Amino acid sequence: MHKIAMLGTGLIGRFYTMSLQNFRGKDEIKVVCSNKLENAKKFAGEFGIPRWTEDMATAIQDPEIDTVIIGIPNYLHKKAVLLAAEAGKSVLCTKPLAMSGPEALDMLEAVEKAGVFHGYLEDLVYPPKTLKALHAVRKGALGKVLWARSRETHGGPHSDWFWTKELSGGGAIVDMGCHCIEIARNFIGKGIRPVEITCWADTQVHPIEAEDHAVGLVRYENGAIGQFEVSWTFRGGMDLRDEVSGTDGTVWLNHWMRTGFEMFTGVGQAGYVAEKAEGDTGWLFPVGDEVGSLGYVEMFMDMFNSMDKGTAPMETFYDGYIVNTIIDAAYKAAASKKWEAIEVKDWRGGTVNQENAGLKDYDEQHYLIKEEKMADEKVKVILKDKKTGKISQIIQ
Amino acid sequence: MHKIAMLGTGLIGRFYTMSLQNFRGKDEIKVVCSNKLENAKKFAGEFGIPRWTEDMATAIQDPEIDTVIIGIPNYLHKKAVLLAAEAGKSVLCTKPLAMSGPEALDMLEAVEKAGVFHGYLEDLVYPPKTLKALHAVRKGALGKVLWARSRETHGGPHSDWFWTKELSGGGAIVDMGCHCIEIARNFIGKGIRPVEITCWADTQVHPIEAEDHAVGLVRYENGAIGQFEVSWTFRGGMDLRDEVSGTDGTVWLNHWMRTGFEMFTGVGQAGYVAEKAEGDTGWLFPVGDEVGSLGYVEMFMDMFNSMDKGTAPMETFYDGYIVNTIIDAAYKAAASKKWEAIEVKDWRGGTVNQENAGLKDYDEQHYLIKEEKMADEKVKVILKDKKTGKISQIIQ
Amino acid sequence: MHKIAMLGTGLIGRFYTMSLQNFRGKDEIKVVCSNKLENAKKFAGEFGIPRWTEDMATAIQDPEIDTVIIGIPNYLHKKAVLLAAEAGKSVLCTKPLAMSGPEALDMLEAVEKAGVFHGYLEDLVYPPKTLKALHAVRKGALGKVLWARSRETHGGPHSDWFWTKELSGGGAIVDMGCHCIEIARNFIGKGIRPVEITCWADTQVHPIEAEDHAVGLVRYENGAIGQFEVSWTFRGGMDLRDEVSGTDGTVWLNHWMRTGFEMFTGVGQAGYVAEKAEGDTGWLFPVGDEVGSLGYVEMFMDMFNSMDKGTAPMETFYDGYIVNTIIDAAYKAAASKKWEAIEVKDWRGGTVNQENAGLKDYDEQHYLIKEEKMADEKVKVILKDKKTGKISQIIQ
Amino acid sequence: MHKIAMLGTGLIGRFYTMSLQNFRGKDEIKVVCSNKLENAKKFAGEFGIPRWTEDMATAIQDPEIDTVIIGIPNYLHKKAVLLAAEAGKSVLCTKPLAMSGPEALDMLEAVEKAGVFHGYLEDLVYPPKTLKALHAVRKGALGKVLWARSRETHGGPHSDWFWTKELSGGGAIVDMGCHCIEIARNFIGKGIRPVEITCWADTQVHPIEAEDHAVGLVRYENGAIGQFEVSWTFRGGMDLRDEVSGTDGTVWLNHWMRTGFEMFTGVGQAGYVAEKAEGDTGWLFPVGDEVGSLGYVEMFMDMFNSMDKGTAPMETFYDGYIVNTIIDAAYKAAASKKWEAIEVKDWRGGTVNQENAGLKDYDEQHYLIKEEKMADEKVKVILKDKKTGKISQIIQ
Repeated sequence: MHKIAMLGTGLIGRFYTMSLQNFRGKDEIKVVCSNKLENAKKFAGEFGIPRWTEDMATAIQDPEIDTVIIGIPNYLHKKAVLLAAEAGKSVLCTKPLAMSGPEALDMLEAVEKAGVFHGYLEDLVYPPKTLKALHAVRKGALGKVLWARSRETHGGPHSDWFWTKELSGGGAIVDMGCHCIEIARNFIGKGIRPVEITCWADTQVHPIEAEDHAVGLVRYENGAIGQFEVSWTFRGGMDLRDEVSGTDGTVWLNHWMRTGFEMFTGVGQAGYVAEKAEGDTGWLFPVGDEVGSLGYVEMFMDMFNSMDKGTAPMETFYDGYIVNTIIDAAYKAAASKKWEAIEVKDWRGGTVNQENAGLKDYDEQHYLIKEEKMADEKVKVILKDKKTGKISQIIQ
Repeated sequence: MHKIAMLGTGLIGRFYTMSLQNFRGKDEIKVVCSNKLENAKKFAGEFGIPRWTEDMATAIQDPEIDTVIIGIPNYLHKKAVLLAAEAGKSVLCTKPLAMSGPEALDMLEAVEKAGVFHGYLEDLVYPPKTLKALHAVRKGALGKVLWARSRETHGGPHSDWFWTKELSGGGAIVDMGCHCIEIARNFIGKGIRPVEITCWADTQVHPIEAEDHAVGLVRYENGAIGQFEVSWTFRGGMDLRDEVSGTDGTVWLNHWMRTGFEMFTGVGQAGYVAEKAEGDTGWLFPVGDEVGSLGYVEMFMDMFNSMDKGTAPMETFYDGYIVNTIIDAAYKAAASKKWEAIEVKDWRGGTVNQENAGLKDYDEQHYLIKEEKMADEKVKVILKDKKTGKISQIIQ
Repeated sequence: MHKIAMLGTGLIGRFYTMSLQNFRGKDEIKVVCSNKLENAKKFAGEFGIPRWTEDMATAIQDPEIDTVIIGIPNYLHKKAVLLAAEAGKSVLCTKPLAMSGPEALDMLEAVEKAGVFHGYLEDLVYPPKTLKALHAVRKGALGKVLWARSRETHGGPHSDWFWTKELSGGGAIVDMGCHCIEIARNFIGKGIRPVEITCWADTQVHPIEAEDHAVGLVRYENGAIGQFEVSWTFRGGMDLRDEVSGTDGTVWLNHWMRTGFEMFTGVGQAGYVAEKAEGDTGWLFPVGDEVGSLGYVEMFMDMFNSMDKGTAPMETFYDGYIVNTIIDAAYKAAASKKWEAIEVKDWRGGTVNQENAGLKDYDEQHYLIKEEKMADEKVKVILKDKKTGKISQIIQ
Repeated sequence: MHKIAMLGTGLIGRFYTMSLQNFRGKDEIKVVCSNKLENAKKFAGEFGIPRWTEDMATAIQDPEIDTVIIGIPNYLHKKAVLLAAEAGKSVLCTKPLAMSGPEALDMLEAVEKAGVFHGYLEDLVYPPKTLKALHAVRKGALGKVLWARSRETHGGPHSDWFWTKELSGGGAIVDMGCHCIEIARNFIGKGIRPVEITCWADTQVHPIEAEDHAVGLVRYENGAIGQFEVSWTFRGGMDLRDEVSGTDGTVWLNHWMRTGFEMFTGVGQAGYVAEKAEGDTGWLFPVGDEVGSLGYVEMFMDMFNSMDKGTAPMETFYDGYIVNTIIDAAYKAAASKKWEAIEVKDWRGGTVNQENAGLKDYDEQHYLIKEEKMADEKVKVILKDKKTGKISQIIQ
């Protein structure tokens, strides 16, 4: 049973609070902080939180609380983390962890030095679908993962500060690329080193400095590719999908607009449809359980259960640091128009030296390249001669 | 904060317990009962429940507990309810409530007379998708509901007793028709009286006495139709879908096999896929959050929150009684090959006398029947003359 | 190479003509007939047809033509068929064949007596998806078919005459039930006799005499059920789906709104979306190949190829006669509120005497009822003792 | 009415022939050529083609034929085109046009010099879905196209020669990237110049020289991105999808595995499922109309109708030349690890100088960045001050 200080009363603070309070749970938010006192007070009233403040330090140092949840703009994360570390409180920080890789490393070192519990609130690796898919992948259902694409696109963030680069640290890559990078990393394997990246980023639509659309390809040491697609220019709602290909299988996850809830209304009384939905007549695709589908429920359970067991949660500040480091390289590559190395100073994973191409024997003389049933129901086999390298086919 | 006696350690007891324990919640199961002591003991060990027994009365009368949850075979529900009512405990009973309408009415009268809280554990009106759809329907997004089909089909129940008619009270209609009937009733409106039913039921595949496949049409007083489709003969997994049509809109809900999680595996290491899934290689359709998707999470929250607030939950024994009454009429209609009246002795809803056909004015002289954009992008309008009744068309 | 008289210039005549002219084909429409000469002339101009007339007999007796295609209102089908039979021309008639079973039988007898080629233009058994599914079903992919549901619902027909019962013969059942009945009959097997029917039909929305919404269950002699769902009250476009369940498999066909074409537009320049689509902004679900998806292309190929080969096409007037006979029984059942016998005077199929329940041996002592992998990855088996009939379970 | 020489009797020759012969059409294949006479003879027998040969020149110079269709391995295209140009025959060449951009330019110049009709058989811009989507895009339904992704992945090609780089010119990029590049180019606009490309390509699985998996991003002069994803390592069948985003809308096309045909079979009698399907039990996703879904039907209609009208078809050798030029740059970029310029020597499109970011006025003082309905049903608006550039938000 934990007593929590909630920093932030925007969309993310609201989602976190709804997740924490929804399930007749034991953990309680005891103080809420916003830089506008009025907002903090109103939020406290709405959610039955006993204390509110506009001073971050007051909230963090509140003697009753043991856990700080950071849901404030990116440029303030470091300050909040340092205060929490100093106060010896457990600290859970929203995504992205920091404005840059080096800043993230400072924050990681601070919490590790202080010995406090640290969790990285990367909710989008926690949707129940994702957890089940990761479980299957780890059991080998897909063989070796070759490619993992994660896509998050919508019409742009809710809050004004996120559209201002100095406050957010960047555009769609910082906002959503952090999710996609970490999703791919989970599927490919956290112990596999991300090596280099190519990236396209542009400001296609909005009158802003940061990119509103980007695609990047992260190459991992074992040859796997993590691909992110992020956009603030997308029309039609929020597109939130992951696709993973392996040598033995495929996973397709759709988290938002095509999840088995379809509604047509000619009269438009459907009210709020889903986060970032567009329109309220015609065909709509509401999401039943938004906080669950976004992973908040399982994420906080993992965080508090891990805290209670004294183990690390699935996502720690170390993961946030890796993600920030990859984002830094993404911006560098977008500017240099080259593949750029991903410089992970503090690499804690392994080293692989794995050749890509697997060789499957067909018979003593041949490797098997492929077999397939044709339209005439015969089976065609493509073979490679082990000695000559010549490729041939037989029909069975 | 509640102390619970869990009666039953089969699939349903397991799902209930997982739902109750999953969310760092305040409510606790303090005693578990199975007719096989060994099962109770094992279950208690697995879920950290302090006491276990094979005697239902012992569990119900346990002085620490305030709430009894009934997850045992149908023919035992009445006995458990009467004991709980007598003991003054809150009682939550799984579906179907009883073996018949009259038995359900006895149970309803018992809990009302004792003044205890009673909840009907009809989980399938509680999935977040369903709750959101019901909210939209009540706000008018679909206009008047005309038809609601609910379908639940799979390869048959898990437990031996359910295949034995004397213990279960029937076949697929009792097992799953109860869900479908109550889902349709929620969409059409609980205050609208169910009037009559036609039903086909047959034992198409299995060597059993009860029906393994059935379809029924329930006509409500306002002309709406609630349609159920249930089967223990379905191949391919579990099909769990609801479709609702109204004068102004449509809702399609898919709860299980097409919800945004698709996996292909050639090697079959995917493990447990989902309740009633078939096969473990090829294309699989796992379900991320099974207990959430089946409504257990929201159902227990409603039950305990209502208990705390002193209000009735969304589903009470009265609803269970209506459902059992409709099931009785379904079996009668299947046997008589006629539409049969649904005899609700204790009707607590309203009376409607609503004509079906709405008349929309097109102009002073005509009613509008329909308008549509054609392939040549012109608009065709179908009209009815108010005086002569003659139907005509114009192209705009 | 055939020379065709096209009777009718409404939606169906247009679709037929587009199908016939679209593929650089050899068969040519040489004369078109509409009861309004002006429409015939305009249609001829649009499609490059050399002659037009308002007199049906003139078109049918045109010496150049060998084939008459009937695409006119239902109450005129018989007259056209009798003229064509008399003139010795091949005759292809749109659906439904007739206004009633006895009228259909008259028409069947007329073409058979005259010895002319007769094809029933039931396009919805000809979509490529349906043909492929029927092929798989006939090869045994689904085992014995137990249930086939066909659903066609939209906002109502395009033409004024179809809303007038005297001209059309009925409402949604006559309009679309004919499709659904014949689709189910193809999946269940044309040699299996349809025995009896229960039906709900109501006028829920429109100011018309005929039903605008209906559901019926046709029981076949082998225990299989053909279910039709038809509505002129549906909102959201056209819903065109077939679902078939067998002892060994399942088929789901979606012909219209969810076929892999999804478009969101905020500006509404998408033009014509698809037949009976609603709205032109927001999420739209266009159909790529409408005439192909509705089966027109394969249907006419079957008709003309069969004509050339001297064989019967897949759908003949006999099929139209069976469908009209089932529709007659549907209306009778809707009125009598009982299951009504389907009286096929001229039955040309077989007789089955097939017991439903199959018995699978588990071991010498037991039948197998079911086996399933559980959440704990164990396998549960449900058995029936061959002697005692007692049902039990074992966990493997 | 055309007389055709078909060069090639492999999968592509078969698909072409089926498309041409399927619709009672006027155009006829009069001679077929394979480098193995036996194959040519067998093919001729199967499809009723009067003459066969193993000599390409004989087939092309056959005096009866006016049109040559090239469906042979890539390294032979140029030879066949030059022969056809010399013989003054219309020539339709399968994809990719050539082994490289310069070779394609030679071929283009040859047919233009000879003044013969030339069509590039890029079938995947011709599926009816794609044609309808292109029509909507051109009418403005999506506003300005910002990004177009085309994906084609499966388990690898059918024929041995395609696995051998010297005969095919490359791997998955040459095989399928050509499709994806041209699909994106059609959506973005053929008049917009492709400027530069970044590309990842690797041999992840097979013992071959060429790449079996690749992703590329083509930047167009107006800032739009065409993205291709191609793989011979995909498991689960063939994945064929296009996604297009514009300022005002979105299009999602799925051509193969999720198009409204789903089948489960436990017994595996479903026979041939679809091109490159995996497995024949469990859940299968057959394709109804394969040749139609792959665009062959509409493609040949466009080719022959254009020939008859004396106009250029939708896809000419010029398009094939552009595609080969982009592929060349893709390989260069994959090797250099940099964005590489796309050098189109013979550019026939326009020049654009279009700024990305559009400015929408909110009021005199502000630009509108975004507006959205929030969970509390209020509307939040993000604005940018026209003078100061400061970003702010208001709640309505």
